[in-house]
Amino acid sequence: MAATYEALQEHGYADLTIKQIGESFPKSTSLIYHHYEGKDELLRDFLGYLLEHFETSVPKDEYPDARAHLEALLAHLLADELPPERESFTAAMVELRGQAASDPDYREHFDRSTAYFHDRLVQIITDGQAEGVFRDDVDPASVAALLLATIDGTRFQRVTTEDAVDVGQVRAELEAYVETRLVEETG
Amino acid sequence: MAATYEALQEHGYADLTIKQIGESFPKSTSLIYHHYEGKDELLRDFLGYLLEHFETSVPKDEYPDARAHLEALLAHLLADELPPERESFTAAMVELRGQAASDPDYREHFDRSTAYFHDRLVQIITDGQAEGVFRDDVDPASVAALLLATIDGTRFQRVTTEDAVDVGQVRAELEAYVETRLVEETG
Repeated sequence: MAATYEALQEHGYADLTIKQIGESFPKSTSLIYHHYEGKDELLRDFLGYLLEHFETSVPKDEYPDARAHLEALLAHLLADELPPERESFTAAMVELRGQAASDPDYREHFDRSTAYFHDRLVQIITDGQAEGVFRDDVDPASVAALLLATIDGTRFQRVTTEDAVDVGQVRAELEAYVETRLVEETG
Repeated sequence: MAATYEALQEHGYADLTIKQIGESFPKSTSLIYHHYEGKDELLRDFLGYLLEHFETSVPKDEYPDARAHLEALLAHLLADELPPERESFTAAMVELRGQAASDPDYREHFDRSTAYFHDRLVQIITDGQAEGVFRDDVDPASVAALLLATIDGTRFQRVTTEDAVDVGQVRAELEAYVETRLVEETG
């Protein structure tokens, strides 16, 4: 998986060959062929690996309340600058996700991953409503859908443009949305 | 360009060959080679064509005010169901945009296109502030950045998942955001 990651970074998806993956692989290339029929099958496995890695990398610590949890999540996912490793990780995932537009097997992977993150956001919002920090009269599923579309959009934009996107602006405005639409007024 | 579009829909980006494009092309395939050195060069031209088509397809009619203009734009871009032609057009664009993650030439195209749409949204919000329908105390650039991230995210999600995304929820919640954060209270 690490060899695939390296080769994908260096060569991009469209030009990637098993031979190139083999060059980053400490063992014999024939071992790759022993496990995988070809590039497509290997990349599908690799995608599962990427998505799992992404799901576990998102903060899950204990927070004082749901609002702090949501803020930590947005700060992590919409950081101004990504460390180089996360930057190229995001690029690899976006490039593979682009393939899903013409490949139903890939779409299945992203279906599962999108539903996972949507569920997690719904849970945070529902927790916040139970805690009294978020308003009761918003629909958790719709709020989660907007948040996830914005997060996915920013991840998509940041690795497919040079400098047309200011992630800090998106995050600041999304925080203002959370404040005006979601946070229960106190006092 | 139409032949490229057809071949891309049928075969996907990674497997696409000039020969396949030639099969949808009414003239000789050699004519394609006369104009383009290879698939990459042709697809870069094709991307320019797609982006131009997209830019001109977004409604630009006269509206009673900036709020109606923004609503029409969101209803168009975040329609519940896309007609088949727009669906496959979106899929083609997302697939090509995924390539931008590893190709700086592609990133340049999407930089230009992203800046174009951001400018258009900023203009609508600034107009609305001048007309008194939008609040003065929001930053047009940040609001535009959030709207565009959500629009790009939804376009990305809708063609790379099967049924994990409810576009109607995103649109309803984005309209609620516009209402609570942007629209000037009257009375």
